[in-house]
Amino acid sequence: MKADFPKAPLVLPAAEAEVMRVLRNNGQTTRPEISRVTGWSRAKTSQEVSSLVKKGILKDVGEEDSKGGRKPRLLRLNNHLGYVVGVDIGATSLEVALADVNGQILQRTAEPADVRDAPEVLLGRCRKIIQSLAEKEGISAQLILSIGIGVPGPVNFSRGVLVAPPLMPDWENFPIRLFFKEAFPSALVVVDNDVNIMALGEQRSGDAANVDHFLVIKIGTGIGCGIMVNGKIHRGSDGSAGDIGHICVDKSGPICRCGNRGCLEAMAAGPAIEESAILAAKEGKSEFLRERMEANGGKLTPEDVNMACREGDEAALEIIRTSGKMIGDVLAGLVNFFNPSHIFITGGIANFGNHLLIAIKRAVLRRSLPLATTNLSINFSATGPDAGVVGAIMLALEYLFVVEGSKPYYGSS
Amino acid sequence: MKADFPKAPLVLPAAEAEVMRVLRNNGQTTRPEISRVTGWSRAKTSQEVSSLVKKGILKDVGEEDSKGGRKPRLLRLNNHLGYVVGVDIGATSLEVALADVNGQILQRTAEPADVRDAPEVLLGRCRKIIQSLAEKEGISAQLILSIGIGVPGPVNFSRGVLVAPPLMPDWENFPIRLFFKEAFPSALVVVDNDVNIMALGEQRSGDAANVDHFLVIKIGTGIGCGIMVNGKIHRGSDGSAGDIGHICVDKSGPICRCGNRGCLEAMAAGPAIEESAILAAKEGKSEFLRERMEANGGKLTPEDVNMACREGDEAALEIIRTSGKMIGDVLAGLVNFFNPSHIFITGGIANFGNHLLIAIKRAVLRRSLPLATTNLSINFSATGPDAGVVGAIMLALEYLFVVEGSKPYYGSS
Repeated sequence: MKADFPKAPLVLPAAEAEVMRVLRNNGQTTRPEISRVTGWSRAKTSQEVSSLVKKGILKDVGEEDSKGGRKPRLLRLNNHLGYVVGVDIGATSLEVALADVNGQILQRTAEPADVRDAPEVLLGRCRKIIQSLAEKEGISAQLILSIGIGVPGPVNFSRGVLVAPPLMPDWENFPIRLFFKEAFPSALVVVDNDVNIMALGEQRSGDAANVDHFLVIKIGTGIGCGIMVNGKIHRGSDGSAGDIGHICVDKSGPICRCGNRGCLEAMAAGPAIEESAILAAKEGKSEFLRERMEANGGKLTPEDVNMACREGDEAALEIIRTSGKMIGDVLAGLVNFFNPSHIFITGGIANFGNHLLIAIKRAVLRRSLPLATTNLSINFSATGPDAGVVGAIMLALEYLFVVEGSKPYYGSS
Repeated sequence: MKADFPKAPLVLPAAEAEVMRVLRNNGQTTRPEISRVTGWSRAKTSQEVSSLVKKGILKDVGEEDSKGGRKPRLLRLNNHLGYVVGVDIGATSLEVALADVNGQILQRTAEPADVRDAPEVLLGRCRKIIQSLAEKEGISAQLILSIGIGVPGPVNFSRGVLVAPPLMPDWENFPIRLFFKEAFPSALVVVDNDVNIMALGEQRSGDAANVDHFLVIKIGTGIGCGIMVNGKIHRGSDGSAGDIGHICVDKSGPICRCGNRGCLEAMAAGPAIEESAILAAKEGKSEFLRERMEANGGKLTPEDVNMACREGDEAALEIIRTSGKMIGDVLAGLVNFFNPSHIFITGGIANFGNHLLIAIKRAVLRRSLPLATTNLSINFSATGPDAGVVGAIMLALEYLFVVEGSKPYYGSS
């Protein structure tokens, strides 16, 4: 006897798909919340919810805490629908999580990895990890409805392939979607870049729930940006939106790996911070950095600069302030252009704490227009190291429910 | 006997509203076109169209030219629905047009005006013009369903008021919507800034029909930008999106009226071009400009610089190239961030022709990433001087049909 496994995506009428969208941002919701977000009447909301409950997609799961009065009943997705997987591939690590359709992580694994490996090797490992997580959870891999994958490079979203990825040239045009489809034929596979994934994670578990327009800025070896417009990722007409690392900050600055001079990334990201630190050590501006450099065999990392900052080292503080100011100057322009209500800063360098954040904020406030900054909040992301894998799960869920008759987001494969 | 006048907005189920959106972009459409844009099956498209025809909203109006095969029948809005008005208020002029619900202009008037006049005076003139256009057309003003108004300053879109408008301080917070509602109680009134209006005009009558993501750059006394995301104007979280005139291009540049140094507007817009031209004339770099300046009583206009360019005057050409390069450098950053497929240049300075356009293009191509520029088109807007009033009509039409149960875009007034 053949089991009746589900097939993703699940097709819904427009109004029911809209309910799914409210639900996805919060993981759970109530009827009054749906009415508030959609603007629907109580009657219409009830009708749509009932239809979804009848179909076995939604479940009434209990009462919400509320002070006095009638307690609205909580709505969640019915876990019997199946499972989703989030894969977060970083430059040096790999994280895979199996979750229920409500986005609750059931099993997870993180491993060191090197994206310079061939895609078959690294993605082959991912496939095996997914199989083993399913086994641990005691479920058939055929119950996996959707797999969301984040990769550290520019993605052509509709084709699901990397385009000219600087960190991983062998991955160019590798058919990631097909590779996973071979192992999990019933699953939907969605591929996106790491910063977009983080923006989705922010929307789910961060301070960005129900925020219409926000930016996530990732500062690490490079600098990238995830753009949320009306609660949806803006990927642009070629999928390259958010590539802010190569915006010019100084026409006479150093040459960037893209070939231009004075790109933000070349002047303010991790490697630039390292170079400035080495220079400060050599020029005798920082005793702390000089000692660290000697201990490290002539090298310094952003983490060394961070430690120096914590010790109150003036040269290190100046390096971080300079970096923050350059990032803030670029963000000021983007704030004038895009007028977001929130900017979330994340990535390795973002761990540097308040000196960086204050420098960024000052530059934005000084250079942006008052109307655009009155209600603007700039803060570190509160989602922490989980943002990547949570975002990948959200990516998997994002296309799980599609509107009846709509075009699929993805190409032919 | 009281006539049964229509009341805007007209409320439609989601799918029917989607048909309206396809129609609005092109003015007319066909069933195959609706299927193509929405991704619907032929059956579903036919069903939605039939429902709209039955309601008296759509009309089958004849056959489209087509080479061989069956000719798909054209669909347009039923003109019996009523009329709309577009009002385009510029710094020195005023244009009002009465159109049918298909956006075809029936009557129009343009007059000189001065936005430094009190809003009651200038908008009072607009109300009278609308009345007189309705009379000329022989219709009751009560048949006007919607009035779209473009103003040359920052607009809080949901409130329909100007916020800190530099050209027209007396207009701050003036209740424009209420003022028109008094005269036309049955009409919907929508207010937006001039560049957003132009972006809507571009979408209707320009090369931007069916383009998802594009920018309209207006270069005149100031520099502004209209942003189209997924075919909808992006106004940002405070309605200030697109205010690119105050993005910094030179930290040590001249002080701008916003108080900062080296804003794009202060360095590359009309007044900056005039100043550079006067300097070139005084320093003896251009005989042509010196003569014009003497003839003008010590003054020069951007138009003088334009004329000098046409005469091949090297100093004038250099002024235009410098301006274009600065605008292009800012656009390069926005292209990396936003990844539009089209940029349309418009406004008074845009009449300067190819020297300006070439300088802008060069700067963008040099500084943007290849993935973002491979398919990018940068050109002058082809809609010409009509863009404003056509856009205001499109604004009036944009909110005429609303989805059943959805929140109105506008506030309480």
